[in-house]
Amino acid sequence: MKKISIGLIGLGNIGTGVVKLLQQNEKLITQKLGARLVLKKIADINITSPRGIKIDRSLLTKDARDILNDPDISIVIELMGGYEPARTFVLEAIQNGKHVVTANKAMLATYGNEIFPAAQHRGVDVGFEASVGGTIPIIKTLKEALVANKINSIVGIMNGTCNFILTKMTDEGKPFDVVLKEAQDLGFAEADPTFDIEGIDTSHKMAIVLSLAYGKKVNLKKIYLEGITKISALDIAFAKELGYRIKLLAIGMLKGEAVEARIHPTMIESEHLLANVNRNYNAFHLVGDASGPVFLFGQGAGMMPTASAVFSDIIDCARNVLHGISGRVPLRSINETGMKDIRLIPMDDIETKYYFRFSVLDRPGVLSKISGILGRHNISLATVIQKAREEAGPVPIVMTTYKAREKDVREALKKIDRLDVVKDKTVIIRIEDEL
Amino acid sequence: MKKISIGLIGLGNIGTGVVKLLQQNEKLITQKLGARLVLKKIADINITSPRGIKIDRSLLTKDARDILNDPDISIVIELMGGYEPARTFVLEAIQNGKHVVTANKAMLATYGNEIFPAAQHRGVDVGFEASVGGTIPIIKTLKEALVANKINSIVGIMNGTCNFILTKMTDEGKPFDVVLKEAQDLGFAEADPTFDIEGIDTSHKMAIVLSLAYGKKVNLKKIYLEGITKISALDIAFAKELGYRIKLLAIGMLKGEAVEARIHPTMIESEHLLANVNRNYNAFHLVGDASGPVFLFGQGAGMMPTASAVFSDIIDCARNVLHGISGRVPLRSINETGMKDIRLIPMDDIETKYYFRFSVLDRPGVLSKISGILGRHNISLATVIQKAREEAGPVPIVMTTYKAREKDVREALKKIDRLDVVKDKTVIIRIEDEL
Repeated sequence: MKKISIGLIGLGNIGTGVVKLLQQNEKLITQKLGARLVLKKIADINITSPRGIKIDRSLLTKDARDILNDPDISIVIELMGGYEPARTFVLEAIQNGKHVVTANKAMLATYGNEIFPAAQHRGVDVGFEASVGGTIPIIKTLKEALVANKINSIVGIMNGTCNFILTKMTDEGKPFDVVLKEAQDLGFAEADPTFDIEGIDTSHKMAIVLSLAYGKKVNLKKIYLEGITKISALDIAFAKELGYRIKLLAIGMLKGEAVEARIHPTMIESEHLLANVNRNYNAFHLVGDASGPVFLFGQGAGMMPTASAVFSDIIDCARNVLHGISGRVPLRSINETGMKDIRLIPMDDIETKYYFRFSVLDRPGVLSKISGILGRHNISLATVIQKAREEAGPVPIVMTTYKAREKDVREALKKIDRLDVVKDKTVIIRIEDEL
Repeated sequence: MKKISIGLIGLGNIGTGVVKLLQQNEKLITQKLGARLVLKKIADINITSPRGIKIDRSLLTKDARDILNDPDISIVIELMGGYEPARTFVLEAIQNGKHVVTANKAMLATYGNEIFPAAQHRGVDVGFEASVGGTIPIIKTLKEALVANKINSIVGIMNGTCNFILTKMTDEGKPFDVVLKEAQDLGFAEADPTFDIEGIDTSHKMAIVLSLAYGKKVNLKKIYLEGITKISALDIAFAKELGYRIKLLAIGMLKGEAVEARIHPTMIESEHLLANVNRNYNAFHLVGDASGPVFLFGQGAGMMPTASAVFSDIIDCARNVLHGISGRVPLRSINETGMKDIRLIPMDDIETKYYFRFSVLDRPGVLSKISGILGRHNISLATVIQKAREEAGPVPIVMTTYKAREKDVREALKKIDRLDVVKDKTVIIRIEDEL
């Protein structure tokens, strides 16, 4: 039986999962591949800490170059994360003619336009199923299953931490800060949660997904981004009353030749499949021009679910090694040569429905002043909720709109927020009820 | 630019969708494949009826052998359906060294053990993504994405007609016959609906899915099968009261080295993702030992959604043609040589929870008689619903159980149904609330 040697760089949580899964299901994997995968070397700066699994100590090295320069190793698995030296190692692996499997979304979203062309040029594959959506086969679905479709829309819940927090806020009515603390205690949020709750992690994943869905280069920084830190228990309660749930959605929509790409807290109808993605799960809702809606759901992170996705790529690469081929499926859906920049629609120009929560003094004429400004900016109201005052001070007025242009909304709110009866910055949450 | 010639046998609904999709997205498909797909010939017994699309008449032939014997054609798409001559044509295509793409679940479930080994032996691929779950990439997910997982369970809603009927019965409280008629009028059910409503179509798909999930040969006839014809509006109402929805589920569960395989109407918790698969949609809920739960949803049938799946296979085969390879991914997850028979657990031996609806005369001691018999057969009750009598004649008593063995349940019910206070055959619906 043939054998294929692989090397692992990064023995953290996911790396340990990969070793564990190979040990656990080696027979099954060998049977499906028709060859034996041999994990020849594991590199990590820390080779002494216990990982809760048996590892032959002779496999361990502190020097990633023991893997990168080993001519026997044909697949390098990069699971160290971060930008450097991950980028350098991946580029070296490529230069040395090795296939690469990685879960490193930050690196790919930032240096993809360097890494993918280098890999295609050198004739090696780069697998990155684990970089987005954990165990969910979103990469394979975009590159292979829906290959003949124009992707009219792709909407994702791509960050388990945010989704966990929003679910708990919704189910338990608790404020953001309290739930964030609970998420941290449970290990669902980092000590410094900025990367997750400000949506940065989601933007990395979205950049990758968009590049595959449209076969275009994506500039990460041009994706509109709003995190979940401003979501209050009050808005969640109003959302419920309106029949919505609030989720941090990454939204990509094809409009002619251009694409709307935006990440923000979003109200969606409470019966929608995406609204029922709870806790730390991830999900994707795609609409292809032929396929119609397709919905994929699973664990977006975690040791074994992510290891499962890493193995999907390892086996894919190993199959290519066995047949002596590469580039069978273009790395980012189409040939890297001549891949164009995606044309993103400026945020000012998007049109959607809106939820506004105004904090106003309960005085005669307030409603008419606000709705007057909105009307003059072509914003039509769908619903208005004004509750009887229970205490002194500002009261909330909630309005939802029909489709309006983002630029008009911003200009109207700027004027409204300057009114002396308006006591706080108006809360805006976009509504998507046509997904 | 290279070109790859393909031939289509069967210009019905799906076949027309394939031609249409190639016309509609030719540029996109060419760009992703890096080669041109040329539809060289189309065979159908009826080449005169209009299909609502432009087709060059010179492509049309009544003789499938014009395709099967054309040395220029490397991929044959079989979309005629049925057992024969589909089987013969597919085997001929294989013998002539052509890759085959098919949506024909009946043929594959029945003759798979002949077709797949022949294809592997001849060194060609057989793509069948469209045979199960329409546009949902369930085949690719089982064979590739979850390749390193033991599949602990796979549960599917695989028949849109049944799901449409059950959804309408649930939402509108109407009886089966009325809803079936409506489904027929809307084109969601055939004039002779037996194949769908008795679960036969689901059993074909389940046989295919199980063979991939476990890399084993499956004898279609050994899958336990119950259709939806006995589901009443009354049971649907009781299900609602108990917090459940009734779906026709195909359930595969790994138990040690053996597999439970059963298709029957099932009560599932109304919050479960599967319970929220409505109308004619299909879905799969898988649990891999590494991945954890994965849920996939989409259109299980229809012209364009199915054509999308057919194209996923066409492009996969075309990529293999471009690289001069075949057998990159084993046809049914593992090498055909030495593929063993799946070991299915006899239905008598399964353990699950049950819903019973007894039709009894409202007399003292009835409840005690019934529960006494259940108790003597090791069946413990979870809930009992007995309503006040509203009219003369039998009244329903509903019970749900904790886990019990199917054999015990059958024996107990045989005795209960012989009691003279029991006026109708007791209704059994299995409950799965641990999916």
